[in-house]
Amino acid sequence: MISLKTKLCTLLNIEHPIIQAGMAGGATTPELIANVSNAGGLGTLGAAYMKPEDIKKAIHDIRKLTAKPFSVNLFCVENSDKPGDEEKNIVKNELLRIGRDLGVSELDIKFNAADYFDEQFQVLIDEKVPIISTAFGLLPEEKVKQAKENGIIITSMITTVEEAILAEENGVDIIIVQGSDAGGHRGTFDLSKHKNGADVGTFSLVPQVADNVKIPVVAAGGANDGRSLAAALALGASGVQIGTRFLSSEEAGIHKAYKQKLFDSKEDDTVITKVFSGRPARGILNTFIEEFSMDPLPYPYQNTATKSIRGAAAKNDDGEYMSLWAGQNLRPVVKEQGAAEIIEEIMDGARKILE
Amino acid sequence: MISLKTKLCTLLNIEHPIIQAGMAGGATTPELIANVSNAGGLGTLGAAYMKPEDIKKAIHDIRKLTAKPFSVNLFCVENSDKPGDEEKNIVKNELLRIGRDLGVSELDIKFNAADYFDEQFQVLIDEKVPIISTAFGLLPEEKVKQAKENGIIITSMITTVEEAILAEENGVDIIIVQGSDAGGHRGTFDLSKHKNGADVGTFSLVPQVADNVKIPVVAAGGANDGRSLAAALALGASGVQIGTRFLSSEEAGIHKAYKQKLFDSKEDDTVITKVFSGRPARGILNTFIEEFSMDPLPYPYQNTATKSIRGAAAKNDDGEYMSLWAGQNLRPVVKEQGAAEIIEEIMDGARKILE
Repeated sequence: MISLKTKLCTLLNIEHPIIQAGMAGGATTPELIANVSNAGGLGTLGAAYMKPEDIKKAIHDIRKLTAKPFSVNLFCVENSDKPGDEEKNIVKNELLRIGRDLGVSELDIKFNAADYFDEQFQVLIDEKVPIISTAFGLLPEEKVKQAKENGIIITSMITTVEEAILAEENGVDIIIVQGSDAGGHRGTFDLSKHKNGADVGTFSLVPQVADNVKIPVVAAGGANDGRSLAAALALGASGVQIGTRFLSSEEAGIHKAYKQKLFDSKEDDTVITKVFSGRPARGILNTFIEEFSMDPLPYPYQNTATKSIRGAAAKNDDGEYMSLWAGQNLRPVVKEQGAAEIIEEIMDGARKILE
Repeated sequence: MISLKTKLCTLLNIEHPIIQAGMAGGATTPELIANVSNAGGLGTLGAAYMKPEDIKKAIHDIRKLTAKPFSVNLFCVENSDKPGDEEKNIVKNELLRIGRDLGVSELDIKFNAADYFDEQFQVLIDEKVPIISTAFGLLPEEKVKQAKENGIIITSMITTVEEAILAEENGVDIIIVQGSDAGGHRGTFDLSKHKNGADVGTFSLVPQVADNVKIPVVAAGGANDGRSLAAALALGASGVQIGTRFLSSEEAGIHKAYKQKLFDSKEDDTVITKVFSGRPARGILNTFIEEFSMDPLPYPYQNTATKSIRGAAAKNDDGEYMSLWAGQNLRPVVKEQGAAEIIEEIMDGARKILE
């Protein structure tokens, strides 16, 4: 008999075992996060690309809207070596060529990689956020200690059993199991074995991770309704983390052209690509992915380099040149709903199956 | 509330909603098939590469061992155009080079594509097998009619919602939903959109297919225990099809070096490759996949061409040069068990979760 009151609920002090994914790039507005948390789930601020002061402001905004627990997500990844001038010039010319296709004649292309990680993390400590969530890797030992001393719970995303074991050893409290069905960046720590990130499907990965760690695991990748929540619990998970469906919500801070693409796309319309950021990520196939015809710069340099194209696409309402991160369970995402309504629907669906 | 007595059980006249996958190449011995069916599941003969007279003999052998329903799997795929001499020579030289690595000096390489499909199918009609299962495509209209006139149930494997809808329109009775977690050949009908086959994870694909057809759907890819059976039913499936775990069974007709590789491999040790057969398939990464450094010939010519290498590897007990088809839920596969014991374990596990 499966109960919907899982260990995850107890540990996070939430009512429903549903985490809204901490998607970077502006999607996770304070309204989205607060509405998810107020509805009994766990909202997450996708803070990876945010300046420390902006994170602080967002946390204050969230706290004005909810007294419930919420999480803040950061990327734990070393910057790659800065690319050389020749490499940068080749990519710049390619982006300028694509800019012309997009109808833009000048692009202000930057190749920087502002690294605020220590300052970002310090904000989370100063603000004593209830939960810190990491992607791409684990917190360094002293930061784990700092978090624990401040009563902060740590969740980390993994894509293989080996990474899950490392996370548990690191002191992580909850494992987010990212299957290959998931949208957005692949969370694989080390891309040397799998250059596009480990590609193990959610259905296969969740039970194997659950068998190999003692702490609660959460299924991420393809979860979007009561069926997937019930299935995740059957597979041994203690809850689900949901990205794509919350991206389609009324509160999500994404461009309307992106949202429309979510509504219009099918299960096999996404691909894993590095062309937007330099790291592999799953998004809806569009013209930019097809057009960018060379090896991208390493992360995060490709990410800052393509910002100009993405910005121009946003101005033009042109979804063909934006990053359209999305998971594979896309067909049911056909309309805007409030985040609270989404959570209610998922819980109702799961209850019908399980009770 | 989920019941383990599903529509699939009623339709196939079986006790448990578990189908043993019809893996081609000798794995599905009459003993395996009969033991699965006698234990209440549905055994399947992987007959795709078998000569018509051998299929007939196998069916007789199965019937000596069980009076229960069983299925026979065929590949519904057009042969590609025969490759030219130059193409064949390039591949031949590559295979001879790899043969030397394998310690074999002469290889009797063939580039034929014996096409027995009509005769294979006629045997199934003549023998009035209870169930015909197809991969890579659908039966032509007149063959569907012939099967129906003989009271034969048809199951077809699909990898996208669009293929599922085509299958239902074709008259198929049961849809096998193959997620990207699955081992062996990708069942994608048309490889022009996805050159490695559609890669939608089982967790995401099953509910989307279930939403778009009226006939029962079966989850394939990553299912191997009670948790995955319970999860598949939660996702809207009417049962599971299981390959890898039955490959590891005592009755499976695979080389001991292959079986050992199944026991020794992890969730992220498989890749999608075309080098063995010319069609994309998921198998454990080994030396042959790494060594074969060019575009393979189209299916089925690459399959006959690599037979000599695979044969030499079998003689040498060398798993590094065999095709090691396997799905992604590999970690739990650690020991040989009888097929009946496997089914009992899966059902017990599912009952514990659901009851």
